[in-house]
Amino acid sequence: MSRGGATTALRKRVHRANQALVESGLVIETFGNVSAVDRSAGLFVIKPSGVPYEELTPAHMVPVALDTGRVLEGDLRPSSDTPTHLELYRAFACGGIAHSHSPYATAFAQARRPIPCLGTTHADYFRGDVPVTRPLTEEEITSEYERHTGLVIVETFRSGGVSAEAVPGVLVANHGPFTWGPDAMTAVEHARVLEHLALVASLTLGLDAGAVPPAPYLVDKHFDRKHGTAAYYGQSRRGGA
Amino acid sequence: MSRGGATTALRKRVHRANQALVESGLVIETFGNVSAVDRSAGLFVIKPSGVPYEELTPAHMVPVALDTGRVLEGDLRPSSDTPTHLELYRAFACGGIAHSHSPYATAFAQARRPIPCLGTTHADYFRGDVPVTRPLTEEEITSEYERHTGLVIVETFRSGGVSAEAVPGVLVANHGPFTWGPDAMTAVEHARVLEHLALVASLTLGLDAGAVPPAPYLVDKHFDRKHGTAAYYGQSRRGGA
Amino acid sequence: MSRGGATTALRKRVHRANQALVESGLVIETFGNVSAVDRSAGLFVIKPSGVPYEELTPAHMVPVALDTGRVLEGDLRPSSDTPTHLELYRAFACGGIAHSHSPYATAFAQARRPIPCLGTTHADYFRGDVPVTRPLTEEEITSEYERHTGLVIVETFRSGGVSAEAVPGVLVANHGPFTWGPDAMTAVEHARVLEHLALVASLTLGLDAGAVPPAPYLVDKHFDRKHGTAAYYGQSRRGGA
Amino acid sequence: MSRGGATTALRKRVHRANQALVESGLVIETFGNVSAVDRSAGLFVIKPSGVPYEELTPAHMVPVALDTGRVLEGDLRPSSDTPTHLELYRAFACGGIAHSHSPYATAFAQARRPIPCLGTTHADYFRGDVPVTRPLTEEEITSEYERHTGLVIVETFRSGGVSAEAVPGVLVANHGPFTWGPDAMTAVEHARVLEHLALVASLTLGLDAGAVPPAPYLVDKHFDRKHGTAAYYGQSRRGGA
Repeated sequence: MSRGGATTALRKRVHRANQALVESGLVIETFGNVSAVDRSAGLFVIKPSGVPYEELTPAHMVPVALDTGRVLEGDLRPSSDTPTHLELYRAFACGGIAHSHSPYATAFAQARRPIPCLGTTHADYFRGDVPVTRPLTEEEITSEYERHTGLVIVETFRSGGVSAEAVPGVLVANHGPFTWGPDAMTAVEHARVLEHLALVASLTLGLDAGAVPPAPYLVDKHFDRKHGTAAYYGQSRRGGA
Repeated sequence: MSRGGATTALRKRVHRANQALVESGLVIETFGNVSAVDRSAGLFVIKPSGVPYEELTPAHMVPVALDTGRVLEGDLRPSSDTPTHLELYRAFACGGIAHSHSPYATAFAQARRPIPCLGTTHADYFRGDVPVTRPLTEEEITSEYERHTGLVIVETFRSGGVSAEAVPGVLVANHGPFTWGPDAMTAVEHARVLEHLALVASLTLGLDAGAVPPAPYLVDKHFDRKHGTAAYYGQSRRGGA
Repeated sequence: MSRGGATTALRKRVHRANQALVESGLVIETFGNVSAVDRSAGLFVIKPSGVPYEELTPAHMVPVALDTGRVLEGDLRPSSDTPTHLELYRAFACGGIAHSHSPYATAFAQARRPIPCLGTTHADYFRGDVPVTRPLTEEEITSEYERHTGLVIVETFRSGGVSAEAVPGVLVANHGPFTWGPDAMTAVEHARVLEHLALVASLTLGLDAGAVPPAPYLVDKHFDRKHGTAAYYGQSRRGGA
Repeated sequence: MSRGGATTALRKRVHRANQALVESGLVIETFGNVSAVDRSAGLFVIKPSGVPYEELTPAHMVPVALDTGRVLEGDLRPSSDTPTHLELYRAFACGGIAHSHSPYATAFAQARRPIPCLGTTHADYFRGDVPVTRPLTEEEITSEYERHTGLVIVETFRSGGVSAEAVPGVLVANHGPFTWGPDAMTAVEHARVLEHLALVASLTLGLDAGAVPPAPYLVDKHFDRKHGTAAYYGQSRRGGA
C-alpha cells in the first residue's frame, strides 16, 4: 500500500482514539494526546498541538517520521509531546501511545509514588506497580525537554528491570501518566484503567496507609489468566467453550 | 415448562440485570457479571466472559448446570467467575448474584477491612458489617482458583456465624464485592447499595477514624422495619394503610 | 377552597419537589422524602413509603392530618418517616420538609459531627454550624421511633438555643439530614446546598483538620445580605436597582 | 461604535460565558458570576444578582461604569460582587473575570491555604502557587464589604510580588476563587482549570502531606512553552510547523 493510503487509515484510527480519550473523561481543555505507529511505513501519526478536540478531524492528524522525528505532511504542528512518543516507539514494541492528565494518576505522579498493585483489578492489566520516573535534571529540561521525558521513561523500565509489555504504563514525575498497547485504542483503554486503578489505590491507602500488595501468586494468576499463554479469560479465537 | 422456555425467560432477566449493572456505573471495561438460578430446572444463567457489554444480547447468556458446573448450550465461554457463582448457589438460598469492581467497595476489599455498619442506611439493607474473606492460600489460587473464591466466601459466613440472608454481600480480599438476593435484579440493587455504603463509610472514617457503629437496637430497628415479620416499610401486600 | 382542591394543588407541588430531590442526585433507591404543609387546612402531604420514584404521580401523595397524624385519604401508606415530619411541623414555622441520605451529609451524621460553618457559601444559607442530634435511647427507638426522631430534632434546637429559621437543617445521629424551608421546593434546595456544604467542609478538614470558622461578623454579613431586613442579594420586590 | 452597539455584543459574550460557567459544573444554585470589560467604552457588563441561570438572556446582563461603579442601564441589580470586579478591573490589565464556589478551590480558600504548584498541569496555566488573601477585618466587612474584597485581592498580589498575568487567579479567604483572563471565556477556562488543579493538589496532599513543588526550571519550562515569547505549544499564528 502507498504511504498515503496507509496514513489515511492510521489517521482515522488515531482520530477515533483521541475522541475516545475525551469521551472517557480523562481530558481537561486541550491536554492529552494519542498516537499510533506504522512501523513498516516508518512513521507514526499524532494529534496536533493545542487544537480543541471538537474541531479535530482525521485530516488534522500529523504524520511524523520514525527515523528523523520530522513532520512528513501538512502545516500543523504535532503535539508538543511528540518527541516523547518517538522515544517510546523506538524503545518499546508497542503500536499506540496515550497521554492524559487524569486526576488520580496525576496525583500519584505529583506525589512521586508508584501506583501500587493492591488487588486483582490492577493485576488483570498490570503485573505489579506502575513505576514513576526520577525527576529530570535542569539540563534535561532546558534542552530537548520532551525527548528527555521519553528517555527517562525508558531508563525507568530498563534500570528497574520492568517489562513494558507486562506493565504498559508509567507516571512521569510531577507531570502525569503515559500508557501504551498494541494499538491506539488499547492505549486509551489502558489510560482509563490506569485512572481507575489510581482512584481505587488512593481510596485503599486512605482506609489503610500501610496497605500491602497481595501475594505474588495472586497477581500472577490474574495477569496470566488474561494475558498468559494459557489465558482463559474472554472468548478463545477458536470459538470453543 | 420445557428447559428451553425456562432458560429463554431467565436469559432475558439475566441480560437485563447485567445491563442494569452497567447503567449503575459500577462496571469498568468488561469487568463484572450477574447470574440467576432456576433451581427447579437445575441450572443458572450467567454473562459470557470478556464480551463488551454493548454487544450482549439475551442469546449470549450462558446456561450452566448446577450439579456438574458444565455449560449446557452454545459455544460461548461463561464468565471466568462462574465456579464462584456455582459454589454460592450451592451454599446460599439466593436467586441471583452480582459481581463488580466498584471503586469504594473494592478499596475496602483491598484494605482487607469489612464495611462497618455506621448508620441506618446500612442497617436498612445489611444487618451488621459486610465481612471480608481471608486471603486464599497459594494452593487455593493455583488450582481451581475461582471455585476456591466461592468456598472462602461460604467459609467466611459459616465460621463468622453471619447469615447470608441478613447480610447479602461480601468482600473478597484484594479482589472486590459479590452481592446476592432473591433474584438477579435485587442482587444488582444490593451491588449499588453496597457501593453507596462503602462510599459513605469511607467518608465517615475520613471525618473520624474511630467512628463506631450505632447501638444494636438501632440497627435491628431499621433492618426489621424493612425485612422483619412485622415490617412496615413500603406498601403491604394487602394494600392496607 | 375545599379540602379536595387545596390538596390537589399541594399534591402536585409535593410530587414536583420529590422529583426535584431525585434529579438533584441526592437519592439512592427509594430513600428520601419530601412533604409540604397546608396549615389552614390542618394537613400535610407526603410521599408514600417504598414506591419507586419513577412510578410516582401526584395522586400517590398521601395527605395526613396535623392534629391526629392519621392518613386522610387513599389506601397508600405514607413514608415511614411521617411521624418525624409531623413533629417538625408542630414545632417549627416551616412550610416544607425534605429528607435524604446524601453521602457527605450522612457521613457527618454517622461521625456524629456538626457540619461546621467554614465559609461564606455556608453562611449564605445557614447562620452557623448545622447541629447533630444526640443518639436516641433504646426506649425511644423501640417505641414510636420515628416520632422520637422528630422530638430529638426539636430538642436539639431548643436546648442548643439554635433558631430553626436561621439554620434550616439538622443531622440525625447515625441517620442523615433533614432540611426545611417556607415551601417544599426550598426544602429541597436546602438539601442540595447542605450536601454541597458537607462536601466542601469535608474537603477543607482533609486539607486542615484544625480548620476554624471565620469571624462571626463575616458569617453575619453573608447571612444578612441575603436574609436580613436590609438584604441586598437578588432582585428587590420593588424592581429597583 | 455607539455605546449601545458595543454593549450589545459584550452582553452576548458575557451571557455566553456565564452559561459556560454553569455547563462546567462549577456553579451551585445562583452562586457565581462572570463579567467582561470594554475599556474604550469605560464600562463592564456583569450578571444580575440572584436570577436563576436558566432564565438569563443577554438583555439581563447589567452594564456598569468603570469610573463611578454605577449601573448605566436597566432596572436589574448587578451581582452583589460587582464592586469586587470593579476593583480588579481598575488594578489588573484583564478583560474578563469569573467567580465561582467550586468545591475544591473553595476548600483551599476555607483552609486558608494557597493551591500549591505541584506539577506541570498547574505550571501550564499558573506560574507558581495560587495565593490566598488575608482575612478581612471587621471594619472592612461592615462597610463596603465587596469593594474591600477586591482591594484585598490586589493587596495580595502587590505585597506578595505576584504578577496577575502569570497567576490569573486567587482564593479569597473563607470565600472562594476569582479568576481572570484576556476575555470572559478565558476567565471561565481559568476557573475550570483552577478547580481541576485544586482537585489534583488535594489528592496529591492526601497521598503525601509533605509533597513539594517541582524544581522552578520545570515550572518555568511549562509556563514559557505555552505563554513565553518563544512559546511552541499550540499552532503558531503564521501557520508554520
